[in-house]
Amino acid sequence: MATGQQALDAAQLIGVDWGSTSLRAFLIGADGLALAERANGDGASVISGAGAFAAALDEVAGDWMRARPALPVVACGMVGSLHGWLDVPYAACPADARALATGMLPSPGGAESKQILIAPGLLCDESGLPPDVMRGEETQIIGALHLQPQLSEGACIVLPGTHSKWAQVRHGKIRRFATHMTGELYAVLRKHSVLGRLMEESAFNEAAFLDGVEAARRHGHLGVAHQMFAARTLGVTGRMAPAALGDYLSGLLIGHEFRAGLAWREQAGLETAPLALVGSAELCRRYQVALRHYSGERALALDNTAPAGLLLLARAAGLAPSQSTSLESV
Amino acid sequence: MATGQQALDAAQLIGVDWGSTSLRAFLIGADGLALAERANGDGASVISGAGAFAAALDEVAGDWMRARPALPVVACGMVGSLHGWLDVPYAACPADARALATGMLPSPGGAESKQILIAPGLLCDESGLPPDVMRGEETQIIGALHLQPQLSEGACIVLPGTHSKWAQVRHGKIRRFATHMTGELYAVLRKHSVLGRLMEESAFNEAAFLDGVEAARRHGHLGVAHQMFAARTLGVTGRMAPAALGDYLSGLLIGHEFRAGLAWREQAGLETAPLALVGSAELCRRYQVALRHYSGERALALDNTAPAGLLLLARAAGLAPSQSTSLESV
Repeated sequence: MATGQQALDAAQLIGVDWGSTSLRAFLIGADGLALAERANGDGASVISGAGAFAAALDEVAGDWMRARPALPVVACGMVGSLHGWLDVPYAACPADARALATGMLPSPGGAESKQILIAPGLLCDESGLPPDVMRGEETQIIGALHLQPQLSEGACIVLPGTHSKWAQVRHGKIRRFATHMTGELYAVLRKHSVLGRLMEESAFNEAAFLDGVEAARRHGHLGVAHQMFAARTLGVTGRMAPAALGDYLSGLLIGHEFRAGLAWREQAGLETAPLALVGSAELCRRYQVALRHYSGERALALDNTAPAGLLLLARAAGLAPSQSTSLESV
Repeated sequence: MATGQQALDAAQLIGVDWGSTSLRAFLIGADGLALAERANGDGASVISGAGAFAAALDEVAGDWMRARPALPVVACGMVGSLHGWLDVPYAACPADARALATGMLPSPGGAESKQILIAPGLLCDESGLPPDVMRGEETQIIGALHLQPQLSEGACIVLPGTHSKWAQVRHGKIRRFATHMTGELYAVLRKHSVLGRLMEESAFNEAAFLDGVEAARRHGHLGVAHQMFAARTLGVTGRMAPAALGDYLSGLLIGHEFRAGLAWREQAGLETAPLALVGSAELCRRYQVALRHYSGERALALDNTAPAGLLLLARAAGLAPSQSTSLESV
């Protein structure tokens, strides 16, 4: 990253990825990458009230905003939810950067506090199915399409996490998406169910993890609520070490995510389109290992694509210079 | 039920259904029904140590045992687990009352305390699949076959609960079974996940429950970890009342249990055999409503079949008089 002053000088945007439990602010350059980054724990589910949001932003990026008062500030994520700074209505699928930018709303606040733009989340509302929603991931997906333009024509983009998001992209638009509560399911089962009782902490046990993935691949029709009981029975019968049971369960749940997600992708005719993973390196590795076992595919893995997405939203809103030549070389 | 003295005089057995969180003792008549019942909260996961088990039994049934010292006492359930009174090794499928009786072990204890027999749990161990286990439900199933002899030839017996058990019966034997963690999954999701946050307590909402069952029936291929997110999105988008979300999730999870369980039954060629539910009236009703919607079937519902199962175990062990004429009239 650049020095503080260089970053400030080169920035086209202050971008904020403001989730439930954390706030990450970026100085973003013309290429969509972060020139500087700061974070704190003032997530949208941690603080409340417009004053608290303005103060949290000022704490993390106030000096940037004062040094470059004309620089636009765009935020995405749970900051735009009912319990965030401002309830920004969802945009609807299919959506691209322009559609999301159209839905941005300015933060409430008096003359003293700087106004920022808050991006909408995205709603997937298909006939005969319950609605699905995301807040923040839509911006990461838009960023991924920018950083890896070959994905725009057609791709399946997976953002693993507490609530994994699977998105289908065609012709530069997010057509539809589906949330899988894999990460939260693992966490509550491990912490609060009988399954966690036998489990011991350990380093990643790939063999046990793949045993779980294979169980989902081969016998998933038996039902995940049945198969998860094996994370107990394999332990009580002494067939799997306590330290391996957690990764077995993780593999089983991620395997079921692939079982459903890959069939969903195939149904949409995207089975030969690339699959990209967006998320932390550790989680992406786990998903890559699972995918390779499940279908033999290799997925492209991208780390933090939110800054690129935030820049695209700012550009689509006419707030940042349009695509520069430096961008072409990305 | 009979008066205390009548019950004592007529009893052929003191039976104990001793689970994780409760202890239920019965005076059991020749017909396999309870003549008297007592219960307390001294479950096998609540107390520990042989002395505590002996004391708990004495508290609930000591006067029965002293009044009829020759009456055998048989217990089933988690009392026979590693953390129970005595770790009784599992019997293996296929199993009938005789096989279970063979695996019973006497409780440890000195000359002063009465010895009782503790039934084994049952292990289902099929090639290529993780093992499955039950403790207590095997006795309820044996009891169900006794009370409803037409089930013995071929049936699917479902015991809904925290850990639902699906058992395939043929020729009087439990051939195989599968545990579905439906009840525990519902409880941890409701209490500890994001899904519970919007839910409000309410009376049973059958329409919402059936919406969940239908989602599993029609779109179950999308994956339960995806579909459960609707218990949030239907709430945040205002499409379902907070008081209905809990039963929607319940229906979805039970629907997935039927999705997997009915296919598993069909694979075993038991799709035209009767399906019986064994459990509390409230839970059986919920499962009957779900089943009727899912496949149009009507299930036989049986309440407490443990006393009949315990009597069968005692008889198979030669501890109680063999089948009496009064039994034929059941």
